[in-house]
Amino acid sequence: MPKEGITPRAQDYSQWYLDIVQQADLADYAEVVRGCIVFKPNGYAIWEAMQRGLDDRIKATGHVNAYFPLLIPKSFLMKEAEHVEGFAPEVAEVTHASGEELAEPYVIRPTSETIIGYFYAKWVRSWRDLPLLINQWANVMRWEMRPRPFLRTAEFLWQEGHTVHATEEDAERETLVALNEIYADFVEKEMALPVIKGRKTEKEKFAGALRSYALEAIMQDGRALQAATSHNLGQNFAKAFDITFTDQTNTVQHGWTTSWGISTRLIGALIMAHSDDEGLIIPPRLAPTQVVVVPIHKNETERSAVMAAVEQITSDWKGHLRFKIDDREQLTPGFKFNEWELKGIPVRIEVGPKDVQKGSVAVARRDMPGREGKAFVPQAGLRDHITNLLTEIQQNLYDRALRFREEHTFEASSYDELKALVEKGFVRVYWAGSTEDERRIQTEIKATTRVIPFEQPEQSGTCIITGKETKQQVIFARAY
Amino acid sequence: MPKEGITPRAQDYSQWYLDIVQQADLADYAEVVRGCIVFKPNGYAIWEAMQRGLDDRIKATGHVNAYFPLLIPKSFLMKEAEHVEGFAPEVAEVTHASGEELAEPYVIRPTSETIIGYFYAKWVRSWRDLPLLINQWANVMRWEMRPRPFLRTAEFLWQEGHTVHATEEDAERETLVALNEIYADFVEKEMALPVIKGRKTEKEKFAGALRSYALEAIMQDGRALQAATSHNLGQNFAKAFDITFTDQTNTVQHGWTTSWGISTRLIGALIMAHSDDEGLIIPPRLAPTQVVVVPIHKNETERSAVMAAVEQITSDWKGHLRFKIDDREQLTPGFKFNEWELKGIPVRIEVGPKDVQKGSVAVARRDMPGREGKAFVPQAGLRDHITNLLTEIQQNLYDRALRFREEHTFEASSYDELKALVEKGFVRVYWAGSTEDERRIQTEIKATTRVIPFEQPEQSGTCIITGKETKQQVIFARAY
Repeated sequence: MPKEGITPRAQDYSQWYLDIVQQADLADYAEVVRGCIVFKPNGYAIWEAMQRGLDDRIKATGHVNAYFPLLIPKSFLMKEAEHVEGFAPEVAEVTHASGEELAEPYVIRPTSETIIGYFYAKWVRSWRDLPLLINQWANVMRWEMRPRPFLRTAEFLWQEGHTVHATEEDAERETLVALNEIYADFVEKEMALPVIKGRKTEKEKFAGALRSYALEAIMQDGRALQAATSHNLGQNFAKAFDITFTDQTNTVQHGWTTSWGISTRLIGALIMAHSDDEGLIIPPRLAPTQVVVVPIHKNETERSAVMAAVEQITSDWKGHLRFKIDDREQLTPGFKFNEWELKGIPVRIEVGPKDVQKGSVAVARRDMPGREGKAFVPQAGLRDHITNLLTEIQQNLYDRALRFREEHTFEASSYDELKALVEKGFVRVYWAGSTEDERRIQTEIKATTRVIPFEQPEQSGTCIITGKETKQQVIFARAY
Repeated sequence: MPKEGITPRAQDYSQWYLDIVQQADLADYAEVVRGCIVFKPNGYAIWEAMQRGLDDRIKATGHVNAYFPLLIPKSFLMKEAEHVEGFAPEVAEVTHASGEELAEPYVIRPTSETIIGYFYAKWVRSWRDLPLLINQWANVMRWEMRPRPFLRTAEFLWQEGHTVHATEEDAERETLVALNEIYADFVEKEMALPVIKGRKTEKEKFAGALRSYALEAIMQDGRALQAATSHNLGQNFAKAFDITFTDQTNTVQHGWTTSWGISTRLIGALIMAHSDDEGLIIPPRLAPTQVVVVPIHKNETERSAVMAAVEQITSDWKGHLRFKIDDREQLTPGFKFNEWELKGIPVRIEVGPKDVQKGSVAVARRDMPGREGKAFVPQAGLRDHITNLLTEIQQNLYDRALRFREEHTFEASSYDELKALVEKGFVRVYWAGSTEDERRIQTEIKATTRVIPFEQPEQSGTCIITGKETKQQVIFARAY
């Protein structure tokens, strides 16, 4: 039986997503501010958990945080030719301040390569200053005509790493450290979301990059979501902003820069990858609340016995489990079960008078909402039981998502096959086509190359468009 | 002997401040973005430590975080009469996006009462929805003509709490919880900075508030710095944005709202309260690095013996002390000592060949840069010694700042006395004057009422301006 307020995925996946966002109380539309949303407390708490997981990894790999200005002189955008082409059409402009027109307008940062490039040119002098490894947590703005909560909003929150290196090899290594050690590690371990790592084609790369890398994940409708990107910017921005250093032989050289980012659209990925028709599912490691305890009682005598048991059971949880005791009055247990299912809490504990007598509790797993996910467990040793269960749920969500991806990844050996299969998921094809070919395919079948995966087959094959023999496969998919 | 690059406080306090900011590498001027700065890694790390201390307290008092849009429709500012008067003159306006002129311009939030008020009106329906206790970490912008790093910048970072309550009493209680349990507790315990708590006069209150409260701290030049503010907004914003709820008797009422904020200007307060002519001093609880270990050696034999000792000494520090081992080559110990003094690291440990032999180390306290702050301490039990020393330094900084305030707080019984004493610090006076009197005094002697302190004398006295008998004292000072 479908849950009230949630359109089943099979009926309308797109509406299902919006229903989850609303029913789990994650965001509100900011209809008075074009294309923006409010990150409501339940949604923002997920972002805070993501920030912790990412910030730890960013620092563990040697980076430090800083903060650069929100506003960028409009002329800065123009300094890198591809960059301006990519971003100028979607910027918001500040033209007045204190009631007066400004001599030169500013844009609100759509990304910060240019303004940070300006400062790095001031700060970098010698090879001793390199590598320069800085990250920023910030809001950015890209004027968006078709907003969708978390996935596409005019203002969004993200982190952007910006680094400078002495050599191309160092910059390339850094680009891959961000992709692998920061992003893939976080997305797979904390979000329980398997990713395909690879390089972007020329058409899909970042405006101004030498090479872009990305992590692609599959959503439950078979569409791709780019979870993170990392760019080797070569010397493009170093030349545009004159970031130079004196090397060990006293020669002045341009630096090599990188940038990499991950944003609040990951919240959308988390929702779409794991949730079901009962509501949101949050992986335990990111869940702001991992366990909810619902006491069940019909009268005051039962209530005091049950609440005493609940207090006793949870007495050693603090600092070990993130939990909540839902002792709200005037609400039925059924109402509460429904609410916490909608909100995606990984584990629910029910404690009633019979449980008190038996010294047990009922434990319900959110990832298995039916009877198979429910068990009666002794109160003794419950904390360890739950800790293990959370690990099991985390793993189950990952395994399930991986299985889904495997079942929805296909190989196509012709354009017609690609056309048909792209309706269902990821499609691997041999590819020696051009940017022009990619553009045409995008127009015709609304699919784009997601990545050139790092993992490639050993045999070569025939490009589906050019008929050329090639060793390179790419993945096509429809994307968010 | 004055330190190179730092103007002594006695010579030019204002230049001393700028020198500290530069020498400790805390910020850079963003000359290309009017009135803005870059928060460099050393400065931003202090802000991150502050955020942790504040966020913990914000959550412990029952608040949750959320995120609201950066842009506010310009018309929203106009809805509260005092508010628009206070903020309209200093906002930056977004008039164009995607290359087109907008039908209605947006302002970049100077503070978020209006945009948040709009959403709260949608979210609050019944007394069951109250209190609504939300905080936001965000950047804000107030066009600033005379910027000064951290203290006054066009863009700054802050948190702003925004709450709705069913009664005036609840709103008043919340306003004081923010002031006392969040802000005063943080500023005194973590920043080691004693504060005077009190209410703002009508002239000094927040634009749109019923009552504003503040924490005032004294800087080493005798000027006041407002460390935090908390506002009981009464029903002003609830009426302007129609935030209503149905109470338990089914009557529709306007809510009572509060707002409270603390910003990156606290970094300026931290610098000015504690630092000396040798450089920055960071209180141990907020210091990103609490201990730096400097190995001293003249040849490879000495180096390997010293480094082995350093490794052994620090082997049980991880997770207990935030420390750094400065094993940079080609730099003398003296250069390193100087650098870490400039950067305000609370404790420096020196380990040389003689220390290895004796099983001791030299320990230098940053808060006592001379010989009196240096001691030879056995390696055995060093971690506990340092832990205790950090507590002692934290307390010493607080005590010193409190003593300074006591020595620079005066009572004046006439306007002439006030005039003379305000050159030196805080001046308490009996006060029954008007807003007009405050304005005149501000023009004449450049001092403002800082707060009406919660702690008032038992006896009444004579107002220095009106000659009226009054029970109320206020504090006048020149302020940052």
